[in-house]
Amino acid sequence: MTHFPKGFTSCSVNAGIKDDTLDFTIIYSDVRASAAAMFTKNQFCGAPITIGKEHVADGYLQAIAVNSKNANVATGDKGLQDARTMTEAVAAELGIHAGDVLPSSTGVIGVPLPIEKITAAVPGLKKQLTADGLEQSARAIMTTDTYPKFRTRKIGDVTIAAMAKGSGMIEPNMATMLSYILTDAEIEPADLKKMLKKAVDVSFNSVSVDGDTSTSDTVAILANGLAGNVDLAEFESVLTDLCIELAKEIARDGEGATKLVEVRVTGAESDQIAKKIGKSIINSPLVKTAIFGEDPNWGRIMSTIGNSEDPIETSSVSVSFADVHVFKDGMPTEDKRTELEDYLKTNEVLINISLGNGTGAATVWGCDLSYDYVKINGEYTT
Amino acid sequence: MTHFPKGFTSCSVNAGIKDDTLDFTIIYSDVRASAAAMFTKNQFCGAPITIGKEHVADGYLQAIAVNSKNANVATGDKGLQDARTMTEAVAAELGIHAGDVLPSSTGVIGVPLPIEKITAAVPGLKKQLTADGLEQSARAIMTTDTYPKFRTRKIGDVTIAAMAKGSGMIEPNMATMLSYILTDAEIEPADLKKMLKKAVDVSFNSVSVDGDTSTSDTVAILANGLAGNVDLAEFESVLTDLCIELAKEIARDGEGATKLVEVRVTGAESDQIAKKIGKSIINSPLVKTAIFGEDPNWGRIMSTIGNSEDPIETSSVSVSFADVHVFKDGMPTEDKRTELEDYLKTNEVLINISLGNGTGAATVWGCDLSYDYVKINGEYTT
Repeated sequence: MTHFPKGFTSCSVNAGIKDDTLDFTIIYSDVRASAAAMFTKNQFCGAPITIGKEHVADGYLQAIAVNSKNANVATGDKGLQDARTMTEAVAAELGIHAGDVLPSSTGVIGVPLPIEKITAAVPGLKKQLTADGLEQSARAIMTTDTYPKFRTRKIGDVTIAAMAKGSGMIEPNMATMLSYILTDAEIEPADLKKMLKKAVDVSFNSVSVDGDTSTSDTVAILANGLAGNVDLAEFESVLTDLCIELAKEIARDGEGATKLVEVRVTGAESDQIAKKIGKSIINSPLVKTAIFGEDPNWGRIMSTIGNSEDPIETSSVSVSFADVHVFKDGMPTEDKRTELEDYLKTNEVLINISLGNGTGAATVWGCDLSYDYVKINGEYTT
Repeated sequence: MTHFPKGFTSCSVNAGIKDDTLDFTIIYSDVRASAAAMFTKNQFCGAPITIGKEHVADGYLQAIAVNSKNANVATGDKGLQDARTMTEAVAAELGIHAGDVLPSSTGVIGVPLPIEKITAAVPGLKKQLTADGLEQSARAIMTTDTYPKFRTRKIGDVTIAAMAKGSGMIEPNMATMLSYILTDAEIEPADLKKMLKKAVDVSFNSVSVDGDTSTSDTVAILANGLAGNVDLAEFESVLTDLCIELAKEIARDGEGATKLVEVRVTGAESDQIAKKIGKSIINSPLVKTAIFGEDPNWGRIMSTIGNSEDPIETSSVSVSFADVHVFKDGMPTEDKRTELEDYLKTNEVLINISLGNGTGAATVWGCDLSYDYVKINGEYTT
């Protein structure tokens, strides 16, 4: 069942940025909300990232304005001005401060934002805001996603709603392409920030579709306090679960993907090393194409592990696909290619890697590399 | 015209390792030759790499024994024994020391080498060795390559012959998949080693097909001295040219590739940073698929540059495709998408990146990412 947090409303419209699909969204809180956000570390970050960092710096936001179809990235000074203009137009319509509006843009890079189409679309939107508009917004922020990613959870009286988009140019470094989490819990900005960072680290920052960190990654959480207090430990646990669920959906819906791939690395010297090795496997085009082709070519996993910058005790490495053990303590097992070929028919592939070298562990998610990935990305702007 | 260095002969046969194509090669020098070799840094390196390092340690080799169709990697102690057995069988046939034989294996990972097929194929091979067998050997060491890579050069009386193979699992780290360079020049092992390292750095180590460093990368040079002295500076220059030519052929013949991509990075803080940025561009699946689709989506170059771990002055970055300038001093140029779309119809794409931040420079080579890459690698073992 879908729940909506108190005091949050949303609407999405077509502003005609590229075609006639939904491309502009406002998310609004009746009152100023505690807020925290994490952004891409890409140095060619989008203009809205620069403005968004300024606006969330004081720990409060009241609205989010998002367009799809154009990322407003690599657009120079005009891009920055356009991002400001977008927040000002939305603030004027809502009767709030522009500094409480978080702007986001997603889509093609290097094309000027048609800001006049956005400013023309804004007047009158306040009347269209509804609570169940949030579900439609999860659809409106999509680019090459094939379905919207939206989840809600209750903790006593408190509700959390979370949405995310992202399908290509996905190896979030701080956050996924775009994700907004809304709650009516009463939480201080500093607590929000701490919890968000921890949740993002094991969720969005553990996903990769293609190893390309986007210029627009943003995850923002707004807590407007209208449902009162919540147990912070419970909130953090639910928040983390929600983020992991959305992160897995992003991998499952990766561009052209036919399979979700989960890699669990244990026995590493540190969690960080475990995560790096896991990421190298879900980013290897050789591993990804073999999984797409359901080809039991597990040797490619060994090669990828061997390329680690950190020292590996090759004689203590074990690898299994779910319960099909292909390599144990540095030696290949009896030939398991037939069992492995059968197993790979699944649409959720689990790879377990045990390094036998410590207690560090990490789980990461990715997807296979298919003909459709090539098709989608060979024809993106044409 | 093809030249052959004095005193080198070769033959290739089918040993039945997987099918009935050429899969086993011996390259032989009439006299012990000065030798140097560079090997993969992959920690799950092949058994022949371990044995090869031992055998070249004294600076001399007299033969190379190579099989394709099986990499003898991740095969445990049996793999090491098999690699030794291969060198012993070849040494016995040739009447030389096993410690002067460099073994190489390339093909599938994690499958035991059928060593008995190789030892059965070796007796009688000495009689089949011929000078022009070298050209056929360049074909026999291929895996998914679509054509052999073989080049020869003269420097006065001295001849250099060089061959290479490699098409997938290519981002050499020290050397390409397999490359053998033979010369009748008289050169000390220490000089050979120094020249090889410099040449490999700007050639094989500047190529990537898919970002996956192979477990079997080997480049070896043998100088048997039968043509006498050579000017070392001239030799080094010709050697470097030869290595660059072969490296470009490897990129052009990358699995499924339809276009060779050359990225020239200038104005970096250091050559190393320039190379890292160049590599990140030729490894980006988003950039590679856009080039395959001839889609003028240059914004993906900006995103990839922005992901550099090293600081970028975004306001001084310029990017052009040959002479189509798309981004200049931190700003997009007037819309060049039509010109760029025309340019991308070429089968050799040149991308120039100027960082405006120093004097570091590097040129790297890669290829596009096509449907055929997915096909080749989804069906590799099945």
